[in-house]
Amino acid sequence: MFKEIWDQLHRQQPLVHCITNYVTVADVANMVLAAGASPIMADEEREVEEITSLCQALCLNIGTLNQRVIASMVRAGQRAAALRRPVILDPVGAGASTLRTQTAALLIREVRPTVIRGNISEIKALASLGGGSKGVDAAAADLIDEDHLAEAVELVHGLSRETGAVIAVTGAIDVAGDGEKAYVVRNGSPLMSRITGAGCMLSALMAAVCGANPAQPLASAALALAWEGLAGERAAAKTAAEQSGTASFGRYLIDQVNLMDFSALKEGMRLEHR
Amino acid sequence: MFKEIWDQLHRQQPLVHCITNYVTVADVANMVLAAGASPIMADEEREVEEITSLCQALCLNIGTLNQRVIASMVRAGQRAAALRRPVILDPVGAGASTLRTQTAALLIREVRPTVIRGNISEIKALASLGGGSKGVDAAAADLIDEDHLAEAVELVHGLSRETGAVIAVTGAIDVAGDGEKAYVVRNGSPLMSRITGAGCMLSALMAAVCGANPAQPLASAALALAWEGLAGERAAAKTAAEQSGTASFGRYLIDQVNLMDFSALKEGMRLEHR
Amino acid sequence: MFKEIWDQLHRQQPLVHCITNYVTVADVANMVLAAGASPIMADEEREVEEITSLCQALCLNIGTLNQRVIASMVRAGQRAAALRRPVILDPVGAGASTLRTQTAALLIREVRPTVIRGNISEIKALASLGGGSKGVDAAAADLIDEDHLAEAVELVHGLSRETGAVIAVTGAIDVAGDGEKAYVVRNGSPLMSRITGAGCMLSALMAAVCGANPAQPLASAALALAWEGLAGERAAAKTAAEQSGTASFGRYLIDQVNLMDFSALKEGMRLEHR
Repeated sequence: MFKEIWDQLHRQQPLVHCITNYVTVADVANMVLAAGASPIMADEEREVEEITSLCQALCLNIGTLNQRVIASMVRAGQRAAALRRPVILDPVGAGASTLRTQTAALLIREVRPTVIRGNISEIKALASLGGGSKGVDAAAADLIDEDHLAEAVELVHGLSRETGAVIAVTGAIDVAGDGEKAYVVRNGSPLMSRITGAGCMLSALMAAVCGANPAQPLASAALALAWEGLAGERAAAKTAAEQSGTASFGRYLIDQVNLMDFSALKEGMRLEHR
Repeated sequence: MFKEIWDQLHRQQPLVHCITNYVTVADVANMVLAAGASPIMADEEREVEEITSLCQALCLNIGTLNQRVIASMVRAGQRAAALRRPVILDPVGAGASTLRTQTAALLIREVRPTVIRGNISEIKALASLGGGSKGVDAAAADLIDEDHLAEAVELVHGLSRETGAVIAVTGAIDVAGDGEKAYVVRNGSPLMSRITGAGCMLSALMAAVCGANPAQPLASAALALAWEGLAGERAAAKTAAEQSGTASFGRYLIDQVNLMDFSALKEGMRLEHR
Repeated sequence: MFKEIWDQLHRQQPLVHCITNYVTVADVANMVLAAGASPIMADEEREVEEITSLCQALCLNIGTLNQRVIASMVRAGQRAAALRRPVILDPVGAGASTLRTQTAALLIREVRPTVIRGNISEIKALASLGGGSKGVDAAAADLIDEDHLAEAVELVHGLSRETGAVIAVTGAIDVAGDGEKAYVVRNGSPLMSRITGAGCMLSALMAAVCGANPAQPLASAALALAWEGLAGERAAAKTAAEQSGTASFGRYLIDQVNLMDFSALKEGMRLEHR
């Protein structure tokens, strides 16, 4: 199945519309290109529907919100939904400000995204909105490790059932689930949290994979998790071998996504289906 | 002639005002600096005329338009025109949305840019506005190769006569023309289309070269095409030798523009005057 | 003292709220992360007070101003001041446009920043506002060298007394002063002016160091000057050894900040207390 998803991405080379924050936007565009797809960034309300219509997927990232862009996200998202194109939501900073939490909630309600990808704090902030956080151990707030894995899978399934979206939560271990099935992915490197944009790039990579595989959002999300995670491991190895720092790691992360082929990915992915 | 243009750029180190998209803006600024010039980014309507007045050239790039910035582009462009400073227009995405096509048309009408640089789709979208696209083979839409070269030269001359601007169209082969003379440039690397910003950086490089050589926009544009193209070849060779990926290529592209000297450029440029 | 400041930064790993220009924002975020702290970028008026409240420091950078963001800067700055959290102001382009000079003046008046960091032109533009520039030699406009050092120290002390802020002015030689004491820092590389963002990154680095050491803004600013300056020397040496260009230098600058430990910094810092 993953082989078909991979091949479909490389055959289709989907166009991905990104309404994304201005911090990591260049890295996001370069990641989409590194994966063999093409990005278009456009956030002006007057053009977003036209641009979305040209594209196979839409990535909404709330990392640097402003009022103008929220309206554009809703319009683009509704158009994508009407065209049955996958929408990936990255709720950057949900829980850190009321505006972000409410905007994430608005987009979930108005757009019904296909995939929501965030870190554990962001996903918990969204789960709390629906009252789903009651069983969540607050002490585990920013951590998914082996001890809290079952809990994280539970959280993912719960939010997935509430929202209808595949939920992907990233940390030391990553989990993606759709309310029934889940993938646990153990690829990645701690250096990914020492650069800006690893999460934003991952969400856009998911958009590219889903854009070429709209019927398989869960497997597409899992593939993207393993792909960027394994690239991160390879980039970290190169950074360490050279005694380079975090900025070089950031370049190598995109390089390694670009250099990956399916046999290397298959061999290196540490992915468990549960 | 190219030697004088090159020397003039390095003597003057012009200041270039860029109103440019937020995706590639850092790369654009770094490219202008790599070439020995200096960038100023400013897009607030209240300050753009003052900033333009300080600068030797203006680069307008419509890659992430919004209403606020369109008004700033018109004001900055009119001020530059009044001061007889070169204005380079990069009509990113013209043809992809009505807003972009109309904004490019507005800027051509209100500012009368000195140089318009785009890919073949964007240049065709502008040519269609004036009815000039009638003879254009739609099947060749995104391609300038040896078979479609004569046609591309024709397109360039036609749009140049309509707009009064030097037209530079980039692809596998690049063409720059002013309605009478044209240069065909065969430098470059396919990797330039696997990073974001190669076109945006080229437009800003043209602005720097034109800013120091305002009387020679066609030769300045041709020099910039060969310069970035040859840098791209060298960056691609280094990327391949190291088995690096697209993100490293992006750094090396700017590095190689920075490291170029005129004798290397003269030797490596594959430029034909027709 | 510097050892304690350094240790405090690495123990606390402060969160830094940045309202900063879109040109260098990714580099700024990566620099804060490279130094062991964490950035949050947020510029929407409705959320800036909440975000500032979560953070240990605020960095205001006026490099790409617009009306919307000026209001956000004032609100965030006033909240930080009320919470007694350090505010670093980077008056990018003060003196180049009326809007920038007036906005810097507005922020000084309304926010009373803890540290103001700029190049000599920007700092002179601010000093002129208060009439403090009378004794300043205009011929030395963009230069701090040994001949003009006493004058620069004078300028720094004068503006510090007027504004209540630590003033840090960067150039071939850097000076930081608080009206009484001053540090002169002789680290750095000319390549730092051939990339965009060295100044913006330095201001954010100062915010990180000050955020963990709010009672010691002058020594924190001096430490940041030496840290980035020494990293720049190391990055320049690597760039030269490899015959790389300016874009590689930009990556290595962040790498070297990331790789620095205190003993290397102590050994390499060329810092004079006067």
